[in-house]
Amino acid sequence: MKLEQIETPAALIDIARMQKNIARMQAHMNTLGVAFRPHVKTTKCIDVVSAQLAAGAHGITVSTLKEAEAFFAAGIDDILYAVSIAPSKLPRALALRRQGCDLKLVVDNPTAASAIAAFGDQHGETFDVWIEVDTDGHRSGITPEQDALLEVGRILHQNGVKVGGVMTHAGSSYELDTPQALAALAEQERAGCVRAAQRLREAGIACPAVSVGSTPTALAAAQLDGVTEVRAGVYVLFDLVMHNVGVCALDDIALSVLATVIGHQTDKGWAILDAGWMALSRDRGTSKQSHDFGYGQPCLLNGTLLPDYVVSGANQEHGILSSVQGGAHVDDIAQRFPIGMKLRILPNHACATGAQFPEYHAVAPDGNSAAWRRLQGW
Amino acid sequence: MKLEQIETPAALIDIARMQKNIARMQAHMNTLGVAFRPHVKTTKCIDVVSAQLAAGAHGITVSTLKEAEAFFAAGIDDILYAVSIAPSKLPRALALRRQGCDLKLVVDNPTAASAIAAFGDQHGETFDVWIEVDTDGHRSGITPEQDALLEVGRILHQNGVKVGGVMTHAGSSYELDTPQALAALAEQERAGCVRAAQRLREAGIACPAVSVGSTPTALAAAQLDGVTEVRAGVYVLFDLVMHNVGVCALDDIALSVLATVIGHQTDKGWAILDAGWMALSRDRGTSKQSHDFGYGQPCLLNGTLLPDYVVSGANQEHGILSSVQGGAHVDDIAQRFPIGMKLRILPNHACATGAQFPEYHAVAPDGNSAAWRRLQGW
Repeated sequence: MKLEQIETPAALIDIARMQKNIARMQAHMNTLGVAFRPHVKTTKCIDVVSAQLAAGAHGITVSTLKEAEAFFAAGIDDILYAVSIAPSKLPRALALRRQGCDLKLVVDNPTAASAIAAFGDQHGETFDVWIEVDTDGHRSGITPEQDALLEVGRILHQNGVKVGGVMTHAGSSYELDTPQALAALAEQERAGCVRAAQRLREAGIACPAVSVGSTPTALAAAQLDGVTEVRAGVYVLFDLVMHNVGVCALDDIALSVLATVIGHQTDKGWAILDAGWMALSRDRGTSKQSHDFGYGQPCLLNGTLLPDYVVSGANQEHGILSSVQGGAHVDDIAQRFPIGMKLRILPNHACATGAQFPEYHAVAPDGNSAAWRRLQGW
Repeated sequence: MKLEQIETPAALIDIARMQKNIARMQAHMNTLGVAFRPHVKTTKCIDVVSAQLAAGAHGITVSTLKEAEAFFAAGIDDILYAVSIAPSKLPRALALRRQGCDLKLVVDNPTAASAIAAFGDQHGETFDVWIEVDTDGHRSGITPEQDALLEVGRILHQNGVKVGGVMTHAGSSYELDTPQALAALAEQERAGCVRAAQRLREAGIACPAVSVGSTPTALAAAQLDGVTEVRAGVYVLFDLVMHNVGVCALDDIALSVLATVIGHQTDKGWAILDAGWMALSRDRGTSKQSHDFGYGQPCLLNGTLLPDYVVSGANQEHGILSSVQGGAHVDDIAQRFPIGMKLRILPNHACATGAQFPEYHAVAPDGNSAAWRRLQGW
């Protein structure tokens, strides 16, 4: 299907930009001498993930067991489930391992570690568990010097569970916007995770894998001594939040929402789009950054940026496009954006916007597109 | 399946609360002597809509043609597509009408009206089109006194298109929070829409339907003289935004997200949940209201509110539950919310949160649940 024929709203992936983003990250990982395990939570799409693996990635990271099940069914068996597991989900994890999936679990507390050990013992399964390390205080994990690190390690190790590694995610990198700050956080993330591995090893626990990453820190890292692999997700498409963080240009953003102009309120300087928050998502990630892009940055169908305009508001199926200067362009809004005109809206957050759609339309350089399915649910 | 067996995260509908909400709205409409056409965009779920129709609703309102297609396939033929149509979508509308669906379109501008007339003429189809009226300046539509109202009416009428009615949606009601203000807006919505119909009729255009509504104005309306039908969507489940608007109690909210505690950061007073923004949605609709509920209001599994706690942050698959008093409950967070504990989170916005899930788990008073599928996409 040609780009012009796609019904709106639709989530478009610019394949050339996506491949450039994939190549850039993989080349950086190769230079740093570490394996790369992409986080598939951004796209939940086998077509995208196949391109990441083809470029040199080793295994995948998932955010849900549904992703693990679907990507294992698609032939990928090296899978890290990167959320500390709820004990009630262990039967699904066991089922995957029994089918031959090399599924690795994550844990950051003694209770869940004990539950994994007991469940594994009960079912004769040696789970492979990575301990989540907190290197920036933004969310989960055990800090490298906490007693709980060795406590969890010992609960697993002494009860027949394989401690496969340590992993951390410096998600606070999303709040930064200078190369210096990103490089410093990348080093903090590396050093903290390596230190946690060192403490476990000193306690007699092998801990072969040292896994770090977020898109900003992965791209900012200058050296990753002691690290065995990096994880990142949103780099594959990028978005306006990542642009504000400073790790991509607007022209690198490979995801856009195709929308049609369906109305005007000329006295307010508004063009009304058929892409509201149901299509763009409610993510307003740029609202606290240096440049607030509202609900998204409009572009022409050919990708040309329209920097004087923004999607300034959104209801469920209506987006409001207006001038960034307020009333300056009021008079010509209906002429500039006639009924039926199609636009592409760059999103704040590729993970959130993609999740609103059952499929992407992947657009090749010749303008032809293919439908790439996404997963939904847990 | 029993409530305790449902995997997390999951979207739960409390059937008893939903039925109470449906009965309350229908009774109010019956008292006011108007037909009720529920907006199915909130749930996109045939099981919910069947309950609305069984209670006395006449026809449905949809926000997408996909909803129209799916609900027509499920046996509902009286459907209002309440978004000003993009001309490129007319072939799908035609296909529905050719199959026997009494699909009504909406338009608010001469360009789209002309496109409908030309397309109808080309295909020998008499479309039924309602003109969207702007009664509160919040989004789309033509104000009752604008010349464009008669211009659009005449384009349709003189070119063989049926002007089936006028419709308006006073969506700015979501920004109010007193009974007086809501009642005033309800009267403004009524009067504006009736006035638009009067102008069309004076111009010789029949305009049989006068359709108004939003959940707050529908519930606040004291009289609806001249109105033939009311539309509302979110009332069927309600949410925290509606609670702040003042049209429901917290105990009326029929949607919650079932979540499991998967970790703690005791020094910060955090319990980590396996429901992040992918489950709760990025909607922060209460952030600008009198009571900011963060990403949601936690309750025990039995529905008991936990007013001292809030979901204060969310990543994709992690929610952060903390005390509303900040550090006050730091010491007992892990004891109060042990690993594996299940909670129910009341959402900011039922339409946005429901959209994150492929299905609801509808929970009956006896604790048994059934899966109710939702639509996704356009």
